[in-house]
Amino acid sequence: MSKLKIAVIGCGYWGRNLIRNFSALDEVELKAVCDFDLTALSRIKRNYPAVDLKPSFQDVVNDPRIDAIVIATPVSTHYPFARTALLAGKHVLVEKPLATSTSQVLDLIELAEKRSKVLMVDHTFLYTDAVRRVKSWIEAGEIGGLLYFDAVRISLGLVPSEINVLWDLGAHDFSILSFLCGRDPVSITATGRKHLGHPFESLAYVLADFDDNLIAHFHLNWLAPVKVRRMLIGGSKKMIVYDDMENCEKVRVYDKVISMNHDPEHRERLLTGYRSGDMLAPNLDTGEALRCMAQEFVQSIRDKRAPVSDGYSGYRVVRLLEAAQRSMEMDGRPVELGASAISPLGTFSPLAGLGALDQ
Amino acid sequence: MSKLKIAVIGCGYWGRNLIRNFSALDEVELKAVCDFDLTALSRIKRNYPAVDLKPSFQDVVNDPRIDAIVIATPVSTHYPFARTALLAGKHVLVEKPLATSTSQVLDLIELAEKRSKVLMVDHTFLYTDAVRRVKSWIEAGEIGGLLYFDAVRISLGLVPSEINVLWDLGAHDFSILSFLCGRDPVSITATGRKHLGHPFESLAYVLADFDDNLIAHFHLNWLAPVKVRRMLIGGSKKMIVYDDMENCEKVRVYDKVISMNHDPEHRERLLTGYRSGDMLAPNLDTGEALRCMAQEFVQSIRDKRAPVSDGYSGYRVVRLLEAAQRSMEMDGRPVELGASAISPLGTFSPLAGLGALDQ
Amino acid sequence: MSKLKIAVIGCGYWGRNLIRNFSALDEVELKAVCDFDLTALSRIKRNYPAVDLKPSFQDVVNDPRIDAIVIATPVSTHYPFARTALLAGKHVLVEKPLATSTSQVLDLIELAEKRSKVLMVDHTFLYTDAVRRVKSWIEAGEIGGLLYFDAVRISLGLVPSEINVLWDLGAHDFSILSFLCGRDPVSITATGRKHLGHPFESLAYVLADFDDNLIAHFHLNWLAPVKVRRMLIGGSKKMIVYDDMENCEKVRVYDKVISMNHDPEHRERLLTGYRSGDMLAPNLDTGEALRCMAQEFVQSIRDKRAPVSDGYSGYRVVRLLEAAQRSMEMDGRPVELGASAISPLGTFSPLAGLGALDQ
Amino acid sequence: MSKLKIAVIGCGYWGRNLIRNFSALDEVELKAVCDFDLTALSRIKRNYPAVDLKPSFQDVVNDPRIDAIVIATPVSTHYPFARTALLAGKHVLVEKPLATSTSQVLDLIELAEKRSKVLMVDHTFLYTDAVRRVKSWIEAGEIGGLLYFDAVRISLGLVPSEINVLWDLGAHDFSILSFLCGRDPVSITATGRKHLGHPFESLAYVLADFDDNLIAHFHLNWLAPVKVRRMLIGGSKKMIVYDDMENCEKVRVYDKVISMNHDPEHRERLLTGYRSGDMLAPNLDTGEALRCMAQEFVQSIRDKRAPVSDGYSGYRVVRLLEAAQRSMEMDGRPVELGASAISPLGTFSPLAGLGALDQ
Repeated sequence: MSKLKIAVIGCGYWGRNLIRNFSALDEVELKAVCDFDLTALSRIKRNYPAVDLKPSFQDVVNDPRIDAIVIATPVSTHYPFARTALLAGKHVLVEKPLATSTSQVLDLIELAEKRSKVLMVDHTFLYTDAVRRVKSWIEAGEIGGLLYFDAVRISLGLVPSEINVLWDLGAHDFSILSFLCGRDPVSITATGRKHLGHPFESLAYVLADFDDNLIAHFHLNWLAPVKVRRMLIGGSKKMIVYDDMENCEKVRVYDKVISMNHDPEHRERLLTGYRSGDMLAPNLDTGEALRCMAQEFVQSIRDKRAPVSDGYSGYRVVRLLEAAQRSMEMDGRPVELGASAISPLGTFSPLAGLGALDQ
Repeated sequence: MSKLKIAVIGCGYWGRNLIRNFSALDEVELKAVCDFDLTALSRIKRNYPAVDLKPSFQDVVNDPRIDAIVIATPVSTHYPFARTALLAGKHVLVEKPLATSTSQVLDLIELAEKRSKVLMVDHTFLYTDAVRRVKSWIEAGEIGGLLYFDAVRISLGLVPSEINVLWDLGAHDFSILSFLCGRDPVSITATGRKHLGHPFESLAYVLADFDDNLIAHFHLNWLAPVKVRRMLIGGSKKMIVYDDMENCEKVRVYDKVISMNHDPEHRERLLTGYRSGDMLAPNLDTGEALRCMAQEFVQSIRDKRAPVSDGYSGYRVVRLLEAAQRSMEMDGRPVELGASAISPLGTFSPLAGLGALDQ
Repeated sequence: MSKLKIAVIGCGYWGRNLIRNFSALDEVELKAVCDFDLTALSRIKRNYPAVDLKPSFQDVVNDPRIDAIVIATPVSTHYPFARTALLAGKHVLVEKPLATSTSQVLDLIELAEKRSKVLMVDHTFLYTDAVRRVKSWIEAGEIGGLLYFDAVRISLGLVPSEINVLWDLGAHDFSILSFLCGRDPVSITATGRKHLGHPFESLAYVLADFDDNLIAHFHLNWLAPVKVRRMLIGGSKKMIVYDDMENCEKVRVYDKVISMNHDPEHRERLLTGYRSGDMLAPNLDTGEALRCMAQEFVQSIRDKRAPVSDGYSGYRVVRLLEAAQRSMEMDGRPVELGASAISPLGTFSPLAGLGALDQ
Repeated sequence: MSKLKIAVIGCGYWGRNLIRNFSALDEVELKAVCDFDLTALSRIKRNYPAVDLKPSFQDVVNDPRIDAIVIATPVSTHYPFARTALLAGKHVLVEKPLATSTSQVLDLIELAEKRSKVLMVDHTFLYTDAVRRVKSWIEAGEIGGLLYFDAVRISLGLVPSEINVLWDLGAHDFSILSFLCGRDPVSITATGRKHLGHPFESLAYVLADFDDNLIAHFHLNWLAPVKVRRMLIGGSKKMIVYDDMENCEKVRVYDKVISMNHDPEHRERLLTGYRSGDMLAPNLDTGEALRCMAQEFVQSIRDKRAPVSDGYSGYRVVRLLEAAQRSMEMDGRPVELGASAISPLGTFSPLAGLGALDQ
């Protein structure tokens, strides 16, 4: 079987991660790397001397030897690059978020379906063993009814030049929330702050309401003194702490059953006789999520099927980001999420019309 | 100098803590403990056989030998008990929150001033070395302009029978916020959830807006799998992490200077070049805060001055709680805080009219 | 049933803990507290006004109303006080270590047996749920063959005036080791250091060899910057981390199976392919161990049986301490443990001859 | 200036790390990688297609274009490979430990000096900012007199096929100890255990005595359930915790002054009125240590000077390992360290005779 020929557009921090991971796959031949910054390109040459270095995206997209395009450029360019690549008959993988508006995303989805090409977004966390295990427990009913989902994603870090913390860090949490819950909230409230003269929000609190009492909340912050990557998932049967900063034991499942009860010792605090049960930290596969993500892109092209984080997955996340952005611009007024433009689809839904792939 | 004669009303969990701390003070004679629950009372007898055990509050309040009354009863009874005690000419210390409405609080303040009695609320955290040190740094300008205040106060714990998580846990954070900032927010937004059939909210997110871009946020939760007591305080010069669950090093000061900067290595994520500086964890006095609080009550009576957490401090907290409660009842609609009923007062303001004390 | 009448000798830090715990037991009447330091005694009065305060041990031991004596005095006085008390027909509980030599301990055991009195030593950790659970797993074979036992017990703390770190902190680890393993090492090696002009060792490393390849090691240090209380227990099937400084999850059981294996990825580091399995942190009873210890003393008197930490338990620990002390004095030369003066006894062995108790 | 042409021998786990770091240096041209394992070699090809892949060491060493040889092969081959390379006129960098005996090391040092070649050993930790900062504080007298050095280096990990845990993990701690203290212990005691059928010791405790009361202790273990990399350094003025598993704050300096003092509150525990002071976690450069090590190799060749971790540094570590090994074979009998074969040399001593370098 011939190797899949791939070009990576953008060789910044994340682009280099993608280059490293794709070039390590046996089924892949990294043909070209494209960036208008010649210094950045030249740094690539040292480690990947066989790769074509291209300052022109047009050259890459017109190269008939290339099967698939991986886009790791600033967010505002995701849509035009992805569109051009799909029109040129390439499979496309785009860094998160897939685009800057749902209308852009819908256009890309339609284009990909018409051309029978794979359109995928790099929602990296969906490819971690941690998130996948949590999802399997939720689906198996082990957690019970979901009560809340609380994510803290803060650090003192590099700040993108063109988007706010919501579109940067929040995209991760919306992708995880959407993946785990399998359904969308009915309204979003978001509040942000621009600090220290930064033109975009560096701090945001996001609240997502579901129609069944489930509530989700994100604390996103680029200007925090400590790095925290922690989610609490409260269920009626069990509770989960997913702490991505832990070296081992990233996921802890607490078997805490809460029952109504009268404690005679504490007359004035009546209830919630809680039982603090065992805690289990399952053994997780520690393979790099980005490697799995890259493999899924290749495999979905090979199998002519939709990837886990397909265009619809990208749509759901951008739709939530759009709503949160609108709420933030209205100083935290709730924004109702109307009917989705797309019919509800299972996460692994086959991509209808993805027929003959010309590899 | 004769000892201050004190009665404690309510001998539940917190009441017993107060009994233990007041009885350890040399300047105090614990005369009576009052509770309508005779079993609870009888448990007190073992350790404090010399104390009068009284099932009737009226007996205690009418006892002319008693100088001061400490109220540790359910929140709904704070106001009537405190009112009766003040009318009977006693100094009064009340568990937080001081009462269930600002109008009640104002009534108590007025009464205390008329009778020249000390009215104090047990905002325990204001008596920790941690909070006091943070306040001193803020006042000295070492933190720079305040950007955000983020508090997480969650655990799986006993739940009071008559109030929600906002009035229980949130009272702590509002008292700390109010103390540290020295000014009040202009609006409050709060969202809560009732879980597992509990009649009151066990989860709440509270957001407080200040008129100068400062934002405060609380995550309050009785049904979390892990106990967290952590505040982040972001300033333009330094940032603070105050983690009350740490055995040592509860307060960490991060000397992180954030400056706008272009990082050539990360072309697409450019600004906010940050410098991660040293971290200092100062040596803190680890004495029990409740002991200091008890001493402050005694000392303010002796000195005929207002205590740190006086009626006005209680007013500010109840006013914020009221606003948050109203917002929560309106599904998270922001509630503007109008003009305060009281003129702005410094934290240590002398209590006007506190004249001749009859000890 | 009449209450057990108890006197506590010594009201220093630990003595006060014992007073608090015994006075909280329904079956106990705390009759007297004895200390030659009148200031210390007077501090007791405040909280326990009904207790007789006695500066003379002789008065206490001659008081016919007293059934049992609890000794919390400096280590050098354990033996004379315990001996006198047993001769006076009292049941005796002694702070750890039981005495300063095995000959003293054997004398006390003999005396207690002759007089049919309970002789108990306060090996507090044997009454924690953590240690008991670990013991039950070891006995059930769940850990597999024991490979190593590594204890770190260090902190910056108060230093006793008359013993070294071995007899102070090391007594805990020897009691836990002895309890968990159910057998004694064949030789002990210990090395210590006196620091900062202190007349006794403030740092010690102790190594205990068993005849079946099991090795135990303690790191004991009074002059460490951080407080650590951590044991690693390596078994052929599972491994345990017992961290007493953890608020929750004090005990973690790692299901790590180690097998000989060739890892093709790492040619030069081949064997011991390990499988990193799940980790379980069981729900532990968090009751105060000292309370359970006090109850065991009372109950063993009531039941006319030997307590868990009986004289033999005290003997085993003192025998190990003696050997370690000898090794330390010989600059770390190994000291063989010869035949024990007592026949091997099960931990819960009934105390022969414990007949008619005169309560 | 022409680039330094380098060959790496051995492309296992550590060899690949060295390849990655040397190939990233501008002043270096990675000419060849050598390994008898053709599969391992072929994996290198993907990322470094321009490098010559050589199954024969002789071919590499005979290649006149190559200036320097980096040896990352099993420990038993360090000496013959390094010797051959020096004889062939190459500069040589060897993975730690430099060789398996001091006589081998002395032979290599002599050879390197005769040929005026750089001989360096990869004591990686000496190139971390953490260790360098600690050394600078010790030298500046800020820590005071050194009391103890306690290292725990344990984990559940891959086990080398031909050496025990002492020569593997212990080499790190001896190199750090030697670097920080600037002098050698007078005797070494070591005890080890072979577990689970492994032919070499997987657990070892090592104790090093200095002539001035300083004591050093290592706990080395391949079969521990948790990964710990922690050193405590106790000084008479300050104490340091260096925890290499911490993401930030790897080094914490505790300003804890211990003074002799009588505490009237605790009659029976006299002294060590300790003052728990502030803790400072300095901002550390987080650059990869291996990169700095590689740069030092290149720079010392360029500058015709001895590198920080020169042959003498390797000698000191192997001498300590030899002594510990001998002690371990005698069941923990102390082994005196006689006079060193080399005169004491400062850490950065210029390499005498390192004259004309033919690059």
